[in-house]
Amino acid sequence: MSTSAQIGVTGLAVMGRNLARNFARNGYTVALHNRTAARTHDLVKEFGHEGDFVATETAKDFVAALERPRRLMIMVKAGAPTDAVIQEFAPLLEPGDMIIDGGNAHFADTRRREKELREQGIHFVGTGISGGEEGALHGPSIMPGGSAESYDSLGPMLEKISAKAQDGAPCVTHVGPDGAGHFVKMVHNGIEYADMQLIGEAYQLLRDVAGYTPAQIAEIFRTWNTGRLDSYLIEITAEVLSHVDAATGKPFVDVVEDQAEQKGTGRWTVQIALDLGVPVSGIAEAVFARSLSGHSALREASRGLAGPKPAPLAEDEARAFADRVEQALYASKIVSYTQGFHEIASGSEEYDWNIDLGSIASIWRGGCIIRAAFLDRIRAAYDARPDLPSLLSDETFAREIGQAQDDWREVLVAATRQGVPAPGFSAALAYYDALRAERLPAALTQGQRDFFGAHTYRRTDREGSFHTLWGGDRTEVGA
Amino acid sequence: MSTSAQIGVTGLAVMGRNLARNFARNGYTVALHNRTAARTHDLVKEFGHEGDFVATETAKDFVAALERPRRLMIMVKAGAPTDAVIQEFAPLLEPGDMIIDGGNAHFADTRRREKELREQGIHFVGTGISGGEEGALHGPSIMPGGSAESYDSLGPMLEKISAKAQDGAPCVTHVGPDGAGHFVKMVHNGIEYADMQLIGEAYQLLRDVAGYTPAQIAEIFRTWNTGRLDSYLIEITAEVLSHVDAATGKPFVDVVEDQAEQKGTGRWTVQIALDLGVPVSGIAEAVFARSLSGHSALREASRGLAGPKPAPLAEDEARAFADRVEQALYASKIVSYTQGFHEIASGSEEYDWNIDLGSIASIWRGGCIIRAAFLDRIRAAYDARPDLPSLLSDETFAREIGQAQDDWREVLVAATRQGVPAPGFSAALAYYDALRAERLPAALTQGQRDFFGAHTYRRTDREGSFHTLWGGDRTEVGA
Repeated sequence: MSTSAQIGVTGLAVMGRNLARNFARNGYTVALHNRTAARTHDLVKEFGHEGDFVATETAKDFVAALERPRRLMIMVKAGAPTDAVIQEFAPLLEPGDMIIDGGNAHFADTRRREKELREQGIHFVGTGISGGEEGALHGPSIMPGGSAESYDSLGPMLEKISAKAQDGAPCVTHVGPDGAGHFVKMVHNGIEYADMQLIGEAYQLLRDVAGYTPAQIAEIFRTWNTGRLDSYLIEITAEVLSHVDAATGKPFVDVVEDQAEQKGTGRWTVQIALDLGVPVSGIAEAVFARSLSGHSALREASRGLAGPKPAPLAEDEARAFADRVEQALYASKIVSYTQGFHEIASGSEEYDWNIDLGSIASIWRGGCIIRAAFLDRIRAAYDARPDLPSLLSDETFAREIGQAQDDWREVLVAATRQGVPAPGFSAALAYYDALRAERLPAALTQGQRDFFGAHTYRRTDREGSFHTLWGGDRTEVGA
Repeated sequence: MSTSAQIGVTGLAVMGRNLARNFARNGYTVALHNRTAARTHDLVKEFGHEGDFVATETAKDFVAALERPRRLMIMVKAGAPTDAVIQEFAPLLEPGDMIIDGGNAHFADTRRREKELREQGIHFVGTGISGGEEGALHGPSIMPGGSAESYDSLGPMLEKISAKAQDGAPCVTHVGPDGAGHFVKMVHNGIEYADMQLIGEAYQLLRDVAGYTPAQIAEIFRTWNTGRLDSYLIEITAEVLSHVDAATGKPFVDVVEDQAEQKGTGRWTVQIALDLGVPVSGIAEAVFARSLSGHSALREASRGLAGPKPAPLAEDEARAFADRVEQALYASKIVSYTQGFHEIASGSEEYDWNIDLGSIASIWRGGCIIRAAFLDRIRAAYDARPDLPSLLSDETFAREIGQAQDDWREVLVAATRQGVPAPGFSAALAYYDALRAERLPAALTQGQRDFFGAHTYRRTDREGSFHTLWGGDRTEVGA
């Protein structure tokens, strides 16, 4: 048995298989293992010519095939299967070895596992990987957490297999200790939900308000993709919208059931933001929009509700409207990223991760689903001012959103009057207007809370907590 | 030592104290216990004339003072303190005895505790109690879970101390097994957050768009309180807005710091809704609005962002606008309750609670913070049709929201154009428009997901799951 493999991959479903091939194509010797050995042998049979693989059948042989310190990557389902695999392999490892979990684990599980394995001297590296099957093979965006020591050993290999941004920088960095990598991957997915929802709303408005066909809208997205919205999701939107269903000759988007599915990371992003006290209304509306779309009985029962029917615009008005939608989409996107980066900053503070926000924007520039020219500008914003209170405090973004806001508002006026749902656009605008408000009705909320629950309030002109004797003579007392 | 107490209360902070007094005032003998006995004796000293109290100092004496089956109510902080008190008393109890937890426990904790105690033959009755200090003393709305058997014994007592609706019905019912009571109390609080946020937005619009003073707005709320918005929260809003700060002579609402606080049940409502796949966008925006208001550094950094400054309306326009705001508030309120009741229905289905939604509306009519004439109409809707898919499917609500929607839209147009944040109003309208939409952009979302992740989609015209070979010749294959 060879003991020369620099990395081992167990769990050879499509993501694990493609990552193993990616390592091998980059010159590493890769030990392979899978619960059912047939899959291991199939991989070698089909792709053995791509590089050096060491096929193993037992856990013991798999571990024995790895050079020390061992780098053992597990690519199995999140949750109980991940724990089972860790329990299988951990007893076979030695201090200094690494277990890399490349699945979509909840960061709280990653924190627990990291702590348990650290006590045995094993580095547990919870690693977010984005880019789907294709990314895994050709270069994903990689978000490893875990110890700095593990990154010293593992980082150069990940940098080799990762996507490269347009400036050649590898799309991987040591995100931070323990669960930081999976946390950042979670927020990445939350932002992805928001991006997709905003694109969906733009599409719906172009269709129902402007009166464009899917093919025409595809062309509009293609044009947008040459400008500041240049991104993978805008690019594939054009592809999906221009696709014609062969069976019916109709636009593909019209034959697809309009019920969106989800796997959980978007939901987690909102749930964790709520724990951290971070408003992520844009991401939340995206998650809710997907769940709403799936409630078919509820939708069926609601189709008769009163509302306007949109009347398509004349051609020149439609063109002007499309330009406004671009502004609304861009402005709302700035807000989504503002909210997402706020969540990362809060998580970093809560868990002492010391995450460099600029480097997160940097490694999202290639390989992952939300890759976009836009991320270069976010990186620049944080590079210029690492303590930026919010993306909206960056001069460039503040100027751009300021220039977009008139059009953004008019797009929402049209959506509101014509009855086209735009929850993402409107949540983003409400966030923007709330942040810049001199005063918020939260003062009234505090007064109500003091009235019914004696919860006390603070004053703008004096330190301390106060309570008004609402049931009595309404004098104010210190609390 | 007497063994005649029909109920015992341990934890004599203000809620526990007032509930104990409420039981005593209704003719029950109440055993008292507190970690520090001084509080117990203070209660008897101050309120002993109100009824029959049995002051005890040790856990053993407290338990011994109760008639069997024992009814032991714990009024301590949620979380670890509740577990500690259960662990202290459970060994002293016998099969058939009841522990009633009247705190704001998370329903998942209640389910765990109920299961553990059931194995010892003890009934654990997680009970939501709403109405604050005053409600606890004069009649709260009570939401007990736990076994039907425990309700047979406990229910008549709770009915006696509970609030009564205007028709005389007690504001208590057996909500359902195990954690059903605390779940429903959680959603009650989530709806309360939404109600308060919508009121806050109405206030801000009347102030910034219509140009009214707090005193004038108080009068408007007083008028609204004589109509379909008649409710405790509208009533106290008028009180808070008309209150003048003695120290400064300014409107009270202008001297209160505009940073809203929260305790957790609103957040839980959203987190659990996300787990259940229920869109509760209105409640979520209310929770986010509170957290946003507290991010003072972020707000400070954002005050310079570009946006319109509202220009107050002329007097007759202002009056017309106020009428429109009433319509917008009412329509948004219908949506909040639709979302909240959807969450209760989903929780009931998930956990086999068999909750009668009409009876929940009924027991919220008195005693609790969201008590309102409105709840009579919700009860009527569910009484008429217990399997109502949604409140919006009720003919009356559908008609009313249909009549309100033109004004609702125009209020949002004004908010949007004038830069006044209205996240709750706009989330509610987007929900309404999404539910009634013939088609949603979720079809595009499914197409994108199939493109980048081979997640497959369904078709409108055929059964099955499909995948398009996007990277190949774009034929469609079964999946």
